[in-house]
This record gives sequence, C-alpha cells and structure tokens, in this order.
Amino acid sequence: MTTKLYCFGESGNSYKAALALELSGLDWEAVWVDFFSGAARSPEYRALNVMGEAPVLVDGDLTLSQSGVIQMYITEKTGKFGGTTPEEAREVMRWMFWDNHKMSSQAGMTRFLMNFLPEKHRNADVIAFNVGRLQAALKVLDQALEGKDWLVGDGITNADLSCCGYLFYPEPFGFEREAYPNIDRWLGNISALPGWKHPYDLMPGNPSDRA
Amino acid sequence: MTTKLYCFGESGNSYKAALALELSGLDWEAVWVDFFSGAARSPEYRALNVMGEAPVLVDGDLTLSQSGVIQMYITEKTGKFGGTTPEEAREVMRWMFWDNHKMSSQAGMTRFLMNFLPEKHRNADVIAFNVGRLQAALKVLDQALEGKDWLVGDGITNADLSCCGYLFYPEPFGFEREAYPNIDRWLGNISALPGWKHPYDLMPGNPSDRA
Repeated sequence: MTTKLYCFGESGNSYKAALALELSGLDWEAVWVDFFSGAARSPEYRALNVMGEAPVLVDGDLTLSQSGVIQMYITEKTGKFGGTTPEEAREVMRWMFWDNHKMSSQAGMTRFLMNFLPEKHRNADVIAFNVGRLQAALKVLDQALEGKDWLVGDGITNADLSCCGYLFYPEPFGFEREAYPNIDRWLGNISALPGWKHPYDLMPGNPSDRA
Repeated sequence: MTTKLYCFGESGNSYKAALALELSGLDWEAVWVDFFSGAARSPEYRALNVMGEAPVLVDGDLTLSQSGVIQMYITEKTGKFGGTTPEEAREVMRWMFWDNHKMSSQAGMTRFLMNFLPEKHRNADVIAFNVGRLQAALKVLDQALEGKDWLVGDGITNADLSCCGYLFYPEPFGFEREAYPNIDRWLGNISALPGWKHPYDLMPGNPSDRA
C-alpha cells in the first residue's frame, strides 16, 4: 500500500515531510487536508491526529505525526538524511529541534498572521514581535551556513529539510532571501537537487485556490 | 570527568536536561550561565554554543546543545526515558517535537515577557497573543493526559521531561495548574518521583538573586 501523507500546500511543516519523501525515492501520495475550511478540526481528522495538525503520515498500520518524527521514520526506512556518523546524527537532531523551537514555529505563525488571517484581526505589534523573533533565528541560520553547502556533512540531511520548510514560500513574512546571502545560496543548493519541487507543486492546495 | 551542564535556574529548557540527568542517576554538575547579564552572548560561550542558548552539556570531548538532543543522549547512555518499544520511542519523540514547537517555545517567551522584560518594554497585545498560543497548547496537553499517569507508557519518559519544562515555575505566565486538572495531577506524579527537585533547587540562579 502506498504511503500517504496528509498535508496541504501552504503548510511548511508538511513540506518538510513531503520533500523528504520525494527526495528519498519512496513511493508516496499526498492527501489534501482542507485546513483553511477547518478539516483538521473534524472528528475524523482528530482520530488521525488528536493535535489537529498536519502533516500526518500513514504507512500501513502505522500513523505518525510531527514532521520531525516523520523525517526520522523516512531515515529509518531509507538510511538517508540522518547523517553518516553518530556526531552528524546528533547535529542533525540539534538543527531539527532548533528549527522546531526557534524558526519554523515563528515562520509559520508570522506568515499566517501576515497573509492568511483576515485583515481586521491583524495586529501590527504582534506581527512586528513575531518578525523580530523570526529574524533573530534567520541570522543564526545564515551564520551557521557561512562557507558551507549544507548544515551537516556533505549533503542534504533532515537538518536542511527541516530548516528550509517555510523558506521557499512567496508570501511576505519578514524573510527576504537577498538579506541572508548564505541562506540564499543554500536554498539554491536545495532547489538544484534532482527531483526538488516547490511546496505549491509538491502538495495539493495553495492560496490561489482560495482567491 | 563529571558531566557538566551549563544552565541557569530560570531556564525551563535547561530544566528538561537537568531533571533528566538528576533522575537518570548519572553523575553531573551544574555550571551557572549568567544569562541575564549577557554571559550567553560572550565569545567564550558562543564557542561552546554558537546559538548562544542554554543548556549545553559537556561530557569529556562531547559538547551537546538543544535540550532534546541532550535528553536523547542521556537515554543513549542509561537506557532510560526513551520508551520501551519502537512505537513508544516514536511517541516520545513526537511529544518532544510538539513541546519544542508548540509549548515550551511559547511558555518560555510568555514568561520572559511577563516577568523578566523591563516593564516599559512590555506590550499587552503581544503578551495576550503569546498567552493565547500557550493556552491552546496547554489544552492539547491536558486532553492527552486524560486518564493517564504519563504521556507515553507506564512511567516517566522524555515526553514528560520535555513538556513539564516550564510548568513548575511560580511566576505568572498564563498557566494556572487548577485550570488544567490532568496537567495538575501529572505534575504531581512527576514531583512525587524520588530525587525530583524544583528548577530553582536543581539549578543555580533564580529571580530572587536579581531582586
């Protein structure tokens, strides 16, 4: 049975799992979660993931949520993206936790506040606060990529797949590639990989559907 | 050589690692990071952790940062807190990622904004926004603990050690134990464990030092 990933195009956390699946060579298919119509809050979806989040991976009897856990499972199945030594493996995990804690958490929220939340509910102070947190994280990432093609080792790992989750999106959210030259170059390395796809090409659903 | 944990009492992320070390039975000592005087931004500390964060664990030649990675290392060394089956291990990782992404990230920031940021810099809208995000996470945690003593399996794991990181602190940050009866009961289970210590007793540094 083909592995299914419940996801939607706007979700950078879904993209981390979808891109890992796509680049791993595993056979998988995307199942659209109509997040913006509240599908993730339905009882059916809550049965899949009580946290009401995407992505969720279903592989036979196994159901996994949290993009980081799905990425670790893809590594377990394919031997890819996890680092090649115990030291690299720990460094990969470090970036995954850092990304979840400091970067994607801010990037996803800031992008939501600036683009998907109805204008009447937007608050300039709250947006500025979140942009500030995000930009502090982007600076750390940019410095870590100085002189390096990949965050850990000689090729793409879950560290890169996690940290890039929100950074290919075109909507404004306080991130401009030209302001972070190392991030810009590194995103170029990722998008040059054979099989790479933009989130809106890799997963169903994008803002123009709702325009 | 004794394992060293660079940490400070106010840091819930440090507490996750410190409590895991303490309950694991490993020999360790705390090294105070004078975070509020900017010690984590010093060149010496940046050499230890370029992200300028606490905690950092130093065990012989090994230097690790990110509480989640330190927790995984303690599990590797002791066999404790990682779950007893592959399914449990994934479920433990799921809660660790969820905590980093959705809960501690908000709890730490909200507590900082409400208590440690000078009053003149506090913004009521920003605080309300962060309290809202935190309370949504607390609700998910409270529901997950319904009828359960521990998040995963029959005893304490890294899931509990991660999620409780900020929840024993006395300062106001939008969390009151009595509003979340399952969390309240579960925190009681944790603090009843032999060897448990409150963050301000387990690690050096607390707000009264700076009063």
